[in-house]
Amino acid sequence: MSDTTYRRRLETAQSVLRERGIDQLLLGPSADLTYLTGIHAHVSERLNLLILPAEGEPSMVVPGLEAPLIHDGSGRVTLHAWGDADVPADLAASLIGDAKSIAVGNKLWASFLIRLQDRLTGVNWTEGDPVLRDLRMCKDAEEIAALDEAARLTDEAWMLFVQQSGTLAGLTELQALSKLISISEEVGLYKPSGIIGTGPNSASPHHGGNERVLQEGDALVFDWGGQIDGYYSDVTRSAHLGEPGEEYRKVYGIVNDANQATFEAVKPGVALQELDRAARNLITEAGYGEYFVHRVGHGLGLEIHEEPFLVEGNTLPLQVGMVFSDEPGIYMPGKFGVRIEDSVVCEAEGGRRLNLSTHELFILA
Amino acid sequence: MSDTTYRRRLETAQSVLRERGIDQLLLGPSADLTYLTGIHAHVSERLNLLILPAEGEPSMVVPGLEAPLIHDGSGRVTLHAWGDADVPADLAASLIGDAKSIAVGNKLWASFLIRLQDRLTGVNWTEGDPVLRDLRMCKDAEEIAALDEAARLTDEAWMLFVQQSGTLAGLTELQALSKLISISEEVGLYKPSGIIGTGPNSASPHHGGNERVLQEGDALVFDWGGQIDGYYSDVTRSAHLGEPGEEYRKVYGIVNDANQATFEAVKPGVALQELDRAARNLITEAGYGEYFVHRVGHGLGLEIHEEPFLVEGNTLPLQVGMVFSDEPGIYMPGKFGVRIEDSVVCEAEGGRRLNLSTHELFILA
Repeated sequence: MSDTTYRRRLETAQSVLRERGIDQLLLGPSADLTYLTGIHAHVSERLNLLILPAEGEPSMVVPGLEAPLIHDGSGRVTLHAWGDADVPADLAASLIGDAKSIAVGNKLWASFLIRLQDRLTGVNWTEGDPVLRDLRMCKDAEEIAALDEAARLTDEAWMLFVQQSGTLAGLTELQALSKLISISEEVGLYKPSGIIGTGPNSASPHHGGNERVLQEGDALVFDWGGQIDGYYSDVTRSAHLGEPGEEYRKVYGIVNDANQATFEAVKPGVALQELDRAARNLITEAGYGEYFVHRVGHGLGLEIHEEPFLVEGNTLPLQVGMVFSDEPGIYMPGKFGVRIEDSVVCEAEGGRRLNLSTHELFILA
Repeated sequence: MSDTTYRRRLETAQSVLRERGIDQLLLGPSADLTYLTGIHAHVSERLNLLILPAEGEPSMVVPGLEAPLIHDGSGRVTLHAWGDADVPADLAASLIGDAKSIAVGNKLWASFLIRLQDRLTGVNWTEGDPVLRDLRMCKDAEEIAALDEAARLTDEAWMLFVQQSGTLAGLTELQALSKLISISEEVGLYKPSGIIGTGPNSASPHHGGNERVLQEGDALVFDWGGQIDGYYSDVTRSAHLGEPGEEYRKVYGIVNDANQATFEAVKPGVALQELDRAARNLITEAGYGEYFVHRVGHGLGLEIHEEPFLVEGNTLPLQVGMVFSDEPGIYMPGKFGVRIEDSVVCEAEGGRRLNLSTHELFILA
């Protein structure tokens, strides 16, 4: 991103602060910080804190030993370095001064917030996400190009994997996942990573993978992605080791239909919860509602999970440029799970899938 | 760790809460949570929160889709699952009830704390670290055995690397680091990772490694480690590509002497800042004080950086069972850096190094 882009983002954030009567925005190392300034800072017990006033120049408290790293990417922010024997919360409090309404980046550690709250009285502390969300949710062309490329490479990796994976039976979950991750790296995804669930473990949506050995008859769920220019892909494909039974095929079809139902519901102005409902109604009518145990999707960008969330209760309207996952799933405890996930961008006419790899049910060996 | 161990840790934490007049301790996914309960929870925008009252049973707010994962490791904690359409902060607030003094785990996200602060009035919020620190700082025999093994394997990887690395010149920093990490994995370290700095980049203590190509005349700094049973190793070795100049050899000797000076200062009862002073005085007397830009060390255990910190101003006395890094460094901007880091445990008679790989200056090709 260009210097102009970052300056424009900082200015936009400041105008949002002014509109909402917020004096300052405080951000630790996070995608928010990178989005606004281009700075990649290190999350640790050493305080790194951007202080963005509603008017005036941003400044940042940085550990002295990391200042050389941050200096590289900056020039837009005045750095205030502290040494290991200093008390950085005192430095931050003095820079914050007499601000009375302060928004705090969501991922700042509670310990840093408590230290500031101990030093600054009479302040109204609020979450930073409502400010950042409005900037980050709708992606511009440069961001969408990166997301498109990340999605394309992830699709390529999946198709190579199903063609080249050979015999998976006998491998552990982590070995099978490692094959897919290696291919993803080879095709050019940066820092690919993911989770895998096989057999009964596939019925636990966030099972990460362990030493369980794959065997004929297993349901497989691969959920993975990587980065291009800092922007993530996030894809799930389900497959089966050997011929599946009738119920698996039925459930696979329902999940695929639900994925399509959510996709077809994408249109600017539609409340985000309607995307969840589209998949949920279909799955519920098919009799599996109680086994769809999570929201249908989440925003995707500099983070794998970010605003907007596609969940019941979220009445925020879809806007052009929002990019999010469409990932319904059905999880049958003790038996199997199926999830099919694509990334989708909301365009003026409706949704466009970033992921184009087939939803065909692959029978692997 | 056994069920008995976790029950004892929970009881100890509760007795510390009672002694200090704290009603409840709140922990998100963190090493603190794992230490107390054995639970590995997932850091995300979905609230996972352990609520440990000073008296009575611990409970935990967990995302429904992750409850199967957490259930596996638990039984000591009552789980309260919430669905994606629920408001978990309401659930947490109702479980917290009318507590008036609450300690919060240091790494909980500020957004979760702010949501609780909005719902619970008249509460005195404090940091959780002072509670957890007193439990976690001194390692028991089982923990030290894991730390010993992690250190031993890391040493083994270093010795294999210097024997087998072949020609490093021409590789990028990330490629050279990758060789060391692969060897570390092969010898049996779990999830090894690290940073590298070469040439002028070695003068930036937290430089992570990039596409810079190694060449004859480069100073090299490798800082890496991995896990055994969740406990980390953390080692730094410096080396040189081709014959170093006189100043490099001199600085290397000073850093090595400083490492030894800190090691020799280890004794129960000594204030932690004295360990920093031991290295700093030696380096300052040698004329390089301004180039030693960080504390001499940090605690090591379930986290790579944890309490206690070996830093000026920390008057806490050393205790038997504390495990920490001893890692002085000298960083000459634009030229080179040298850091030598071992892990050390404080025993009744003094320090014992967990890392035994030589500090010999290796000249690599």
